[in-house]
Amino acid sequence: MIRDLPPIEREHRLALLRGSMSDRSIESFLTSDTVSLRWLSGFTGSAGKLLIGEDSAYLLTDGRYAEQAEIETQGTEIKVCIGGMNEQNALIASHLEECKTVALEADRISWMEAEELRERIKPEVLPTSGIIANLRKFKESAEIARIEAAATIADQALAQLRPELGNQPTEIEFARALDHAMLTGGADGLSFETICASGPNAALPHAKPSHRVIAPGDLVILDFGALVDGYHSDMTRTFIIGDGDEQSWVMLEAVTDAQELGYQSVQPGATASEVDSACRSHLELLGLADHFVHGTGHGVGLEIHEEPWINAQSATILEEGQVVTVEPGVYRPGFGGVRVEDTVLITSSGARRLTSAPKDSLV
Amino acid sequence: MIRDLPPIEREHRLALLRGSMSDRSIESFLTSDTVSLRWLSGFTGSAGKLLIGEDSAYLLTDGRYAEQAEIETQGTEIKVCIGGMNEQNALIASHLEECKTVALEADRISWMEAEELRERIKPEVLPTSGIIANLRKFKESAEIARIEAAATIADQALAQLRPELGNQPTEIEFARALDHAMLTGGADGLSFETICASGPNAALPHAKPSHRVIAPGDLVILDFGALVDGYHSDMTRTFIIGDGDEQSWVMLEAVTDAQELGYQSVQPGATASEVDSACRSHLELLGLADHFVHGTGHGVGLEIHEEPWINAQSATILEEGQVVTVEPGVYRPGFGGVRVEDTVLITSSGARRLTSAPKDSLV
Repeated sequence: MIRDLPPIEREHRLALLRGSMSDRSIESFLTSDTVSLRWLSGFTGSAGKLLIGEDSAYLLTDGRYAEQAEIETQGTEIKVCIGGMNEQNALIASHLEECKTVALEADRISWMEAEELRERIKPEVLPTSGIIANLRKFKESAEIARIEAAATIADQALAQLRPELGNQPTEIEFARALDHAMLTGGADGLSFETICASGPNAALPHAKPSHRVIAPGDLVILDFGALVDGYHSDMTRTFIIGDGDEQSWVMLEAVTDAQELGYQSVQPGATASEVDSACRSHLELLGLADHFVHGTGHGVGLEIHEEPWINAQSATILEEGQVVTVEPGVYRPGFGGVRVEDTVLITSSGARRLTSAPKDSLV
Repeated sequence: MIRDLPPIEREHRLALLRGSMSDRSIESFLTSDTVSLRWLSGFTGSAGKLLIGEDSAYLLTDGRYAEQAEIETQGTEIKVCIGGMNEQNALIASHLEECKTVALEADRISWMEAEELRERIKPEVLPTSGIIANLRKFKESAEIARIEAAATIADQALAQLRPELGNQPTEIEFARALDHAMLTGGADGLSFETICASGPNAALPHAKPSHRVIAPGDLVILDFGALVDGYHSDMTRTFIIGDGDEQSWVMLEAVTDAQELGYQSVQPGATASEVDSACRSHLELLGLADHFVHGTGHGVGLEIHEEPWINAQSATILEEGQVVTVEPGVYRPGFGGVRVEDTVLITSSGARRLTSAPKDSLV
């Protein structure tokens, strides 16, 4: 349970942001998005604002977070300012007095907040999107270590509990057991609400665990992950309980192969749509593509779903240091479903799986 | 573990929304907020849109949720439409063809999404705020039953584990044990990341559990809750391990009394600021108000923090059927802190606590 994780270095991140600001001719940048705040400053509170200028950096938050904000931003140039909403607003207005424009994260600020700010401050507010998300796509080694630690915790939880799947637990019972194994195995929390979907419930890609008993012959989808120091893991395995019918085996083999083909196609320089196509075209050959009703994957990091997105429309070029999922699935309403997913790191030569629980289906 | 919860009736909620729309002369209403979606339609997916007209109601979502959306909206008049983003956008544009205006939830839609929509559709987009939040403030009996079930699960988890606090667990160990007790006690999940903060860590109102060993003499703040069918509970207790010093006892008594005074002041017709003042003025008398660095409470329901907000600035009048927290706290940097919190239901004559773990501090 004692984790030896390298510290996250944040000092250079403000320089990265300022580089992006300079590229886009942005004078000052203001965000209240908690994920952007955490990535840039280390601050993990639920409410705050970060105001970044060419040579200034302020974190504004309220009294609840006074001590925490100082501790979490230690080692950065960020100056912490504590006050209520009115004081924060006054401070922002005064710091921006000399600016002509201030850029906001238009995809991460509410319409109302943007309009209120526009009325309160002198500079013009500019909508931007993706500045921080584009920087966050590239994971440093300390971040990869956290995602990998989370992935390992999930692997171990499944290894420990897999034999129980044959003992007819309910979906909820098995999901809670997985949760407990991850939490006692070193996770700070769950990556998301664990999915345990059996029999016809497995036809719902995002099913919630029910009181249904997992019975012989069922397909069972397990989709779960651990959280380590803010970083997520994401893995799906599908098992057949006992013998299973032919259709279940056909679906499971098809999706497992599609996932392997998708994984093999992940490499620097590949477009996200090529990875999607590697999975989808295999399922097309088998006449199953109509039942693959979602995209192939997504980035993973401080958010469980983040850039880059992997789907048929995405022209994004994958690059070394990004962490993504590969997760094709096939769902037949009323019958069941199969999904197989790994979280993978894009390396200089291809990709490396961070989740590594076995995919054989013998329960 | 078998919960016998009354079903949530949703059919009349569209009528409530249409009443609010009519009051504000709103022709059509469009939201993509997942909480609004769940409250109005029962749909629990991670992505979708609800388009409500005077006599039409459409839920738009993607293929992942095709079967789930049909199941979850059964018994409502809502028509489910499945398609990719382009198909959803085309459908919205065509349904709004005859409208002059469409109202959005400006506080729950991103600036970017609002601007993109504005460019794509013919009617004028109007910013609104609080329409659904104001309806959600009033809890029906089926909702209260879920919050109360969650509160009871948290009560029982604490009762079961309290003796362990004296056995020098680390904060993380104790937090994970509470989590496990709630999950095996019938919770669908955790209301939020459990806070277990001891000694000087208790001076941080939103501390994360650390590897610190909980030792004799410590103040320990436990702030946690369970999730039942989407509804949250929220409770804080502070304990002194062993004897404790005089300052700890003074703080604990002061905050416990302040919380009782706050609770006594909760009733239909009281303003939220009066409840805040009931707590704050008691701490002022004792010279501790400077260390009470946050508001007194918040509404609880499908969100852990929702309307009504209880703080010194809030003129909101409390009404029967609302569920709020009362949670004064006192924090001394470097020394420790105390917070005491209950989730309470506002009744016709006053209030009733839904969380009811004992507040005596003998561990």
